[in-house]
Amino acid sequence: MIKVGVVGGTGYTGVELLRLLAQHPGAVLEVITSRKETGMAVADLFPSLRGRVDIAFTDPDNPALRRCDAVFFATPNGVAMHQAQELVEAGVRVVDLSADFRIRHIPTWERWYGMRHACPALVEEAVYGLPEVHRERIPAARLIANPGCYPTAVQLGFLPLVEKGIVDLDHLIADAKSGVSGAGRKAELHILFSEAADNFQAYGVPGHRHLPEIAQGLNQAARREVGLTFVPHLTPMIRGIHATLYGRLTQDADLQKLFEERYAGEPFVDVLPPGSHPDTRSVRGANHCRIAVHRPQGGDTVVVLSVIDNLVKGAAGQALQNMNLLFGLPEDAGLGHIPVVP
Amino acid sequence: MIKVGVVGGTGYTGVELLRLLAQHPGAVLEVITSRKETGMAVADLFPSLRGRVDIAFTDPDNPALRRCDAVFFATPNGVAMHQAQELVEAGVRVVDLSADFRIRHIPTWERWYGMRHACPALVEEAVYGLPEVHRERIPAARLIANPGCYPTAVQLGFLPLVEKGIVDLDHLIADAKSGVSGAGRKAELHILFSEAADNFQAYGVPGHRHLPEIAQGLNQAARREVGLTFVPHLTPMIRGIHATLYGRLTQDADLQKLFEERYAGEPFVDVLPPGSHPDTRSVRGANHCRIAVHRPQGGDTVVVLSVIDNLVKGAAGQALQNMNLLFGLPEDAGLGHIPVVP
Amino acid sequence: MIKVGVVGGTGYTGVELLRLLAQHPGAVLEVITSRKETGMAVADLFPSLRGRVDIAFTDPDNPALRRCDAVFFATPNGVAMHQAQELVEAGVRVVDLSADFRIRHIPTWERWYGMRHACPALVEEAVYGLPEVHRERIPAARLIANPGCYPTAVQLGFLPLVEKGIVDLDHLIADAKSGVSGAGRKAELHILFSEAADNFQAYGVPGHRHLPEIAQGLNQAARREVGLTFVPHLTPMIRGIHATLYGRLTQDADLQKLFEERYAGEPFVDVLPPGSHPDTRSVRGANHCRIAVHRPQGGDTVVVLSVIDNLVKGAAGQALQNMNLLFGLPEDAGLGHIPVVP
Amino acid sequence: MIKVGVVGGTGYTGVELLRLLAQHPGAVLEVITSRKETGMAVADLFPSLRGRVDIAFTDPDNPALRRCDAVFFATPNGVAMHQAQELVEAGVRVVDLSADFRIRHIPTWERWYGMRHACPALVEEAVYGLPEVHRERIPAARLIANPGCYPTAVQLGFLPLVEKGIVDLDHLIADAKSGVSGAGRKAELHILFSEAADNFQAYGVPGHRHLPEIAQGLNQAARREVGLTFVPHLTPMIRGIHATLYGRLTQDADLQKLFEERYAGEPFVDVLPPGSHPDTRSVRGANHCRIAVHRPQGGDTVVVLSVIDNLVKGAAGQALQNMNLLFGLPEDAGLGHIPVVP
Repeated sequence: MIKVGVVGGTGYTGVELLRLLAQHPGAVLEVITSRKETGMAVADLFPSLRGRVDIAFTDPDNPALRRCDAVFFATPNGVAMHQAQELVEAGVRVVDLSADFRIRHIPTWERWYGMRHACPALVEEAVYGLPEVHRERIPAARLIANPGCYPTAVQLGFLPLVEKGIVDLDHLIADAKSGVSGAGRKAELHILFSEAADNFQAYGVPGHRHLPEIAQGLNQAARREVGLTFVPHLTPMIRGIHATLYGRLTQDADLQKLFEERYAGEPFVDVLPPGSHPDTRSVRGANHCRIAVHRPQGGDTVVVLSVIDNLVKGAAGQALQNMNLLFGLPEDAGLGHIPVVP
Repeated sequence: MIKVGVVGGTGYTGVELLRLLAQHPGAVLEVITSRKETGMAVADLFPSLRGRVDIAFTDPDNPALRRCDAVFFATPNGVAMHQAQELVEAGVRVVDLSADFRIRHIPTWERWYGMRHACPALVEEAVYGLPEVHRERIPAARLIANPGCYPTAVQLGFLPLVEKGIVDLDHLIADAKSGVSGAGRKAELHILFSEAADNFQAYGVPGHRHLPEIAQGLNQAARREVGLTFVPHLTPMIRGIHATLYGRLTQDADLQKLFEERYAGEPFVDVLPPGSHPDTRSVRGANHCRIAVHRPQGGDTVVVLSVIDNLVKGAAGQALQNMNLLFGLPEDAGLGHIPVVP
Repeated sequence: MIKVGVVGGTGYTGVELLRLLAQHPGAVLEVITSRKETGMAVADLFPSLRGRVDIAFTDPDNPALRRCDAVFFATPNGVAMHQAQELVEAGVRVVDLSADFRIRHIPTWERWYGMRHACPALVEEAVYGLPEVHRERIPAARLIANPGCYPTAVQLGFLPLVEKGIVDLDHLIADAKSGVSGAGRKAELHILFSEAADNFQAYGVPGHRHLPEIAQGLNQAARREVGLTFVPHLTPMIRGIHATLYGRLTQDADLQKLFEERYAGEPFVDVLPPGSHPDTRSVRGANHCRIAVHRPQGGDTVVVLSVIDNLVKGAAGQALQNMNLLFGLPEDAGLGHIPVVP
Repeated sequence: MIKVGVVGGTGYTGVELLRLLAQHPGAVLEVITSRKETGMAVADLFPSLRGRVDIAFTDPDNPALRRCDAVFFATPNGVAMHQAQELVEAGVRVVDLSADFRIRHIPTWERWYGMRHACPALVEEAVYGLPEVHRERIPAARLIANPGCYPTAVQLGFLPLVEKGIVDLDHLIADAKSGVSGAGRKAELHILFSEAADNFQAYGVPGHRHLPEIAQGLNQAARREVGLTFVPHLTPMIRGIHATLYGRLTQDADLQKLFEERYAGEPFVDVLPPGSHPDTRSVRGANHCRIAVHRPQGGDTVVVLSVIDNLVKGAAGQALQNMNLLFGLPEDAGLGHIPVVP
């Protein structure tokens, strides 16, 4: 059994990680830390875990972390970059669910995240944990930068087109809609029920932190710099991301075939039949990304619909997928949850 | 007082029309018809109208309709085209909230709506009731084709750009999100609470009936044929449309100024300050369209955010705005409702 | 025109008060204060009020308050008791929407609200602003204690039974369900969208602050002390309270007639026909309380269903109703809003 | 492996049964029938099951049903009573999730369900599948009448009090709130998103079909006839039942201890610590019932809060729990799902 530690498990990615870990056949939660909730039983904070998670939050400096095989950071941005080095050196495999190690270009990271990076060396070494792109490199990694939720949905939807270079790479458009849990478990006014329910709005149009992360991935796939407009929206649902992607075709192609072949054999990417419209609930609670590709009216604009559960494939599920790869387990071990519908 | 009749008032646009009419200072509801609910008191079907609407539904052939000054059709598509002629000839001003008279090109209408048009002559004569474009022609009209909800939000957002011709007119993109009431008050599975709540999905990507209506309006504004990709989405909220519009700038412009000048003096179009993100609740229950214009990262893609209440500016409110214009009342008479927030 | 001031208008009762005031034919907003938002335009905080409320928040010590005819306190508990005295002495009529002056027995108030009362003398003088009970005393009042939301729904539902003394007064049960806006516009975790949506729970079962307020009103109606169990629940909707009330009949009665007669002529209490089940949306945005009375299976248990909009009849609307009475306006002036359905 | 058949799997209890069965370690779905969807792949109707359920709906008369070890009826009321006999005689163990075999007194059943019972003999033989009461009798049963959702939540909450007879058994009150999925996957107006969202109402106050089922269970527990008032409410959430139960104590008791002892060892009933308020999401997608017991203000009214997921412990999960008992598997086999929170 893989001995697992979790740093900062009081947010939504944290509790989701605990839900999935508690049902994982090859891992056991040894330690969980939280500065704020030290001493509180996990199941007192999250009654849904009563009878399934028996330990309490401990201090973030808990030396037991170093005795784990794997440690997940489910912390706000700016925490893991201070703690990961020591764990990595102690031989612990680290999966960081925050953004600290996702952006390879340090000045870019520092501009978007508004702080100085504490550990550039590890950024260099970290492997970006999108298995559909970096599967080969993950098993040997000491540190995984687990992708963001929007970047997962958008990249998986764009990759087949961008890798083949068959769309105008200077004018990609990603119109993305996220459930409110994507904003985290923070006491902030704009995500109150009475603010966010029965309401819909865009945010961050001038610039959102996931833009450089998506662009980095697409640049790499295109082997050139792409132009991307990314508009996220807050949607009155708890979980789910729906990315609607637009590109102008520069050459003809059998789009359905292109997508099916790109993701043939992928355990967690499901290309739907032609004419489909995936809904976010079809992945609720599960690690799948479902994708449909359209060419409306036979014109030169391709429309890709890509849905994930932001807390699973967009965070905790993908983290466990990476853990499975790190430790040589079947990639889908403990990730067989069927979406909860309705 | 304008004597008003309503044909088919049992759907959501119908009950919204009744809500607004009952509070209108210059109009009085004389007759309302419904084949299915004949004999039932309106307030029994909609208890929210208890004490405010005292009449009952009558048979659709009620001759009292012909004695009205104005008749609104809040019927499914394909009904008004059979009944409007007789009313118009009797001197009644008709406002059709369905799609029967919106598309000027009959074959196009017939292809998208799947039926033969019963009254092409009136299509020729009808005025498309988007006051921000056709205000001059409305007062003299005998028949108003009240715009669809998506077409209202999308056209108002695109018009300043398209009229000036400063975007690539071959590749306009309208990514629109609608509340579920936009699908009507029909007993259908996909709009059940348990299907549509906590869920999000696109629909009609291969083609939606509002596409030709939007294109017709934009073509006219551009004085050429435009290329438009229109992707509607079903959003887990009751009311509201949020249109996110994308265009590639072909020349430089002060976008904020362009929008402010285009809509200066418009009673129901509110151009927000730079950097704004309008939310749909900011127009809930009100006849306003709020618009923000962005140019992310200073690139060549312009992003317009346009929100309306699909049942007000997108249907019943705009119908009353048209009625006000038809009868020489102040354009905003009875339309001063402040959005209900939260 | 009544010159109106509002103290603390940044919460949900505040913005609702502004919505209603801006559409009131006999009142004009002169000043609004907020310590935190001093200097900010009201319409910047609440874009729904753009073009309708043109003033900015000012400092709470603004002397303009004393020049108003009426001042509303839409503040947290414990603020009005410090400021009301000075205003009352300056001849301003004060309507307090907080709980400071609702409980006549000071030690009871102090126990439930956890602070020392700063102004017991005004408690003595204040009139409890439930017009359906205290209409005669309101016009002459200098200070109105505007009732709480639960107390309004529960008292209006129980009053006919309790005044007649035909139920077991020792075992009244009020099972009440509130929309999340009832918890206020506060950055707290438990009312986040991702916590409160698609979820339902009771709270405060051991004791809730509205219990003594309800009991005080029922005691007075019964002219003896009643026994009441009050269980509030948090419901995943924005607005609305649904009180389900249970009493054991101690004598036979025509319950429908009893309720209809009790509320005959009341402008804002609507007794529904026998067999009805009022829904909260039937009063959304409006000042009505709708009530149905049942006697299931012909047994000796009476069930009363009572719905209000917690922000209107449960707060801001009732405050304006009281203002109308204070200044001799028609009781329903500015309160004719028809519920927004759907 | 237990070979399983499902009759009528197109509703919400059906798809939930499929979700749970597909993850059950000891059962395999052999056949599923639906008159309406014959020939359609299950995963086409429910894309959430893509890759996990590979069979198609077949005709209801499919003889393969008789070769199953267990057959579940997830049909509307009135279907199972015509088909169960033949299967039972063929040696198939039948679990009926509809109401056909729940009420032992045939005239009562016929009055509430409005039809003549087609198979009274099997009613006599059927075991009511509430394992917390009938665990001993279930393993030998040929036919299980799987309890209704409300009856499960209400009985589990009342049982400790009623079995001990320490509350006034003539005046039990069950105020229950259900998510909309409890109304089924039927194209009906009142459960449309735009009708049920942001709204709350009671229904069936004069009488609801679950009343006689609950009463039957409580009568048996009390060994006398009880008096019960049952008021169900429609709540704007998808899943979940919250039952708030009221009883008047007729003798003193350590209520917390009473509940903990009654349910000691129960795998799916979780008595929460004193002072708790279970929320419905704490059982979302899981087979647990969580219960808290209160005695507000130390008075003589006991308040029990009982929550379940109506589709799991209230339907499909309990059905599998019964299957496990029927076939000698661990009672919690395949039912270890941790609630999905948030």
